[in-house]
Amino acid sequence: MANSNLAGPTKTLYLDELHVRQRFTSGTYLIDEEQIKAFAKQFDPQPFHLDAEVAKGTLFEGLVASGWHTAAITMRLLVEGGMPIAGGVIGAGAEVSWPRPTRPGAVLRVESEVLELRPSRSRPDRGRATIRSETRNQLGEIVQVLVANLVVPRRPDLNQDGNAPKNANSAAESSTT
Amino acid sequence: MANSNLAGPTKTLYLDELHVRQRFTSGTYLIDEEQIKAFAKQFDPQPFHLDAEVAKGTLFEGLVASGWHTAAITMRLLVEGGMPIAGGVIGAGAEVSWPRPTRPGAVLRVESEVLELRPSRSRPDRGRATIRSETRNQLGEIVQVLVANLVVPRRPDLNQDGNAPKNANSAAESSTT
Repeated sequence: MANSNLAGPTKTLYLDELHVRQRFTSGTYLIDEEQIKAFAKQFDPQPFHLDAEVAKGTLFEGLVASGWHTAAITMRLLVEGGMPIAGGVIGAGAEVSWPRPTRPGAVLRVESEVLELRPSRSRPDRGRATIRSETRNQLGEIVQVLVANLVVPRRPDLNQDGNAPKNANSAAESSTT
Repeated sequence: MANSNLAGPTKTLYLDELHVRQRFTSGTYLIDEEQIKAFAKQFDPQPFHLDAEVAKGTLFEGLVASGWHTAAITMRLLVEGGMPIAGGVIGAGAEVSWPRPTRPGAVLRVESEVLELRPSRSRPDRGRATIRSETRNQLGEIVQVLVANLVVPRRPDLNQDGNAPKNANSAAESSTT
């Protein structure tokens, strides 16, 4: 599954180093029929994700990937350089929509933009970033729009209490990836 | 991966057979450390999802599943009887949040409630249902809240034009699972 073409080595960024309207582009990921079926068998066993022939007679008129498969591939592209956040890509929640299906042979890429940045009032070592990520296929068509709230550490030397982000422990109770 | 305990054979429902505040409960799904690491390796390769020892030193203080893994398991539980919609569970979009992480050994279950039903104005053969699905672990703690907009066919005998839902073709352009 070493499928994705890395966006390249990138410096990871703290909240203080992000700015609204900042943009990032991921590498690419080719999704094929075999992957679509394997994911569906495990997580979304519906005919339009499992069998190309049967799928022709459904709403989708052909095999399509589970939306959650598109979301998972988007995450991989973000983690591998498409969203270079210090400490990792840690989401508390998101809105996701799938304006059109991902079909076999699609080459996916994620373009992200910072929409909003909010330092935490209660925790000086972190904040939230709202990021819009569009996942596009090889034709440039948008197959997924994700607007995610990420937990982003502040630069340790800017912390009021001098603690490094990893010493804090509350986000483990309030958010996951 | 025949892990989940089916909710049992259930009659699938058309839009006309759903009502606001109607509730559904899925079967259960045990998630273990091996599954968490396998999913993460493929889609979310970050230390807190890949290595239990390293994860102790992170924000999560131990291994946790990718939020997208929790979402994918939720979908499986919905498809296998937790959301008995005629024609399948076809989402156009959703809001998802992860109030606490899913940890190895969790037994997940999904409880869903119909929030809103909207027959389509332009397409007499279908409508939208807004469904809130809470994914809980074996302690009853909520690990994910999903509010999804599903495409739901109307009962064919109620269609103004008499077409069965599968003959319509626009949702393939505007929504996927």
